[in-house]
Amino acid sequence: MTRQINVGGVLLGGGAPVRIQSMTTTHTADAEATLMQIGRLAEAGCEIVRVAVRGEEDARALRAVKERSPLPVVADIHFSARLAVLAVENGADKIRINPGNIGGEEKVKLVADCVRAHGIPVRVGANTGSIEREYFEKYGRSARALVESALAGVRLLEKYGVRDIAVSVKASSVPLTVEAYELLASRTDCPLHVGVTEAGTRESGIVKSAVGIGALLLRGIGDTIRVSLTDDPVEEVYAAKRILRACGLEKEFADVISCPTCGRCEWESMRLAQEVERLAFGAKVRRKIAVMGCAVNGPGEAKDCDLGIAGGRENCVIFRKGEIVRTVPREEAEAVFLQEVRACLEGREE
Amino acid sequence: MTRQINVGGVLLGGGAPVRIQSMTTTHTADAEATLMQIGRLAEAGCEIVRVAVRGEEDARALRAVKERSPLPVVADIHFSARLAVLAVENGADKIRINPGNIGGEEKVKLVADCVRAHGIPVRVGANTGSIEREYFEKYGRSARALVESALAGVRLLEKYGVRDIAVSVKASSVPLTVEAYELLASRTDCPLHVGVTEAGTRESGIVKSAVGIGALLLRGIGDTIRVSLTDDPVEEVYAAKRILRACGLEKEFADVISCPTCGRCEWESMRLAQEVERLAFGAKVRRKIAVMGCAVNGPGEAKDCDLGIAGGRENCVIFRKGEIVRTVPREEAEAVFLQEVRACLEGREE
Repeated sequence: MTRQINVGGVLLGGGAPVRIQSMTTTHTADAEATLMQIGRLAEAGCEIVRVAVRGEEDARALRAVKERSPLPVVADIHFSARLAVLAVENGADKIRINPGNIGGEEKVKLVADCVRAHGIPVRVGANTGSIEREYFEKYGRSARALVESALAGVRLLEKYGVRDIAVSVKASSVPLTVEAYELLASRTDCPLHVGVTEAGTRESGIVKSAVGIGALLLRGIGDTIRVSLTDDPVEEVYAAKRILRACGLEKEFADVISCPTCGRCEWESMRLAQEVERLAFGAKVRRKIAVMGCAVNGPGEAKDCDLGIAGGRENCVIFRKGEIVRTVPREEAEAVFLQEVRACLEGREE
Repeated sequence: MTRQINVGGVLLGGGAPVRIQSMTTTHTADAEATLMQIGRLAEAGCEIVRVAVRGEEDARALRAVKERSPLPVVADIHFSARLAVLAVENGADKIRINPGNIGGEEKVKLVADCVRAHGIPVRVGANTGSIEREYFEKYGRSARALVESALAGVRLLEKYGVRDIAVSVKASSVPLTVEAYELLASRTDCPLHVGVTEAGTRESGIVKSAVGIGALLLRGIGDTIRVSLTDDPVEEVYAAKRILRACGLEKEFADVISCPTCGRCEWESMRLAQEVERLAFGAKVRRKIAVMGCAVNGPGEAKDCDLGIAGGRENCVIFRKGEIVRTVPREEAEAVFLQEVRACLEGREE
């Protein structure tokens, strides 16, 4: 059980649900553009948003962003204690820093005093690009080096009274990332921010993030997750939601299972499955819907579902909670089933 | 270490590389269409292909398929020992059956005698839709029930002298799948065929498969993998390749890492990263290429790569094996870098 921290009202760690976060791609100084993107992220299911603070303009814009942001805002700061303090004074709900590159212990103390005074948490983020020289020389580019580097930052903050600390140790290598977080989880009770860094473009990035974040979540490691994609950050949120769902960590959603299309398929179920998934993706109701092509695994799986369809040579069978609701000629099956799906998602099935 | 089996010349288990497999969506009786799809799968990187055998026509078509297939062919058979025997006699390199639904012990013996005579292996596949009644009643819809059900099939085949057996225990729930394979790996030395069943449409199916298969591979479990998608099976092969790569199990490929686009980005790197990834996806050379947006993590990561680019306000810097190769004005950077990428992928960089 990790310690719990409060990020602008959203609890992290200590048994709270795993939180989804993302990062804006706008210039933070452009508060309007930033707020517009935050709005899209919130709508997609993002729970905490991070913004880059690269200069004074960005830090000052935080005030306007915070005033209207529907999400807690984390300020991402590198190399400057002055900017960190300015960000906190302008309302950041949390800052992400790397104590190793903020300009020495005096500067860390300055930041620590400031966050304590404002009662906000800090994320210490080490990644393979920013391992501290000391640990890099001792342990090379390894899980140990990442973890020691991050924990050195944590100790430094704790020395100056900061207790509300999240930690991350991201690598672009998935096995290295998983190894580092496992070691980290055994060494600290700080809540863990989990992600694979520089994961890549949408297609390979989603797979790398799903493998790395998923493997950790399945072992109970991770209090908040970020999928990093070189893409629209809204895609990061969708991917994060899918990962949580795959790990069984999001309960209130409609799960659509469907057959691989195979030579056994009696009818073309791919298009129908996609349509059902589109209908179901946003629904916050706990349902399991199956689109099965044939009789081999179909009925066995679909019986377990709140709603299911299994194809046949001439007719399709629609199930609901184990009971056959109706048998429909193939050519009508799609329209009939989609109506049933809508009813199911809106809770009108009883 | 699992026992090793030979699937039409492709070794499985016992330290062999993790093999990628997929399944055709054609009617196997249509040998031409099936062969065309097998060709596409092979080109995408598939190493073993499964085809559905639902009737005598399918089984007899195997002969024509086998004659020209570039890949070993596995026949997927349910409910019929007669079809299993016919498939083997027509040249199947392996059969996938569920001994529990093939019609009793006499029939299992018939199939066992046949595969032994032809020297081909068998996959025993249990999934949540086909748990044997006995184990379902004892253990419910659980990992234990899946594993006991599969192992009962294995024991039955072994009783009749079959030793070359691969096993699978797929569920559509990722946590259940992972739990079942972990239990299975502790109970048998048969090579394991790993996958999540009815994973869904491309987007959610890839995430479910990546989490489940990835978590298992990272623990050293899995000798061959199948990503099940309700989509073109070629997509299954691409996803499988990405999963192997993410797990560090495919060495000879070009890894492209790229920044998440964020407010820190000095230039628009998303499009360039996608272009580089497209160039690199098929290349069978071990290279690491980085497309980094900015100075924060960029140079630190890119220095580790065979080739990298990091953006700046006016200029971009291109690295090669830790050395700055050149500084290029932003507007020229993309074209120059893509040339470098091509040279790198073709081994012309030295």
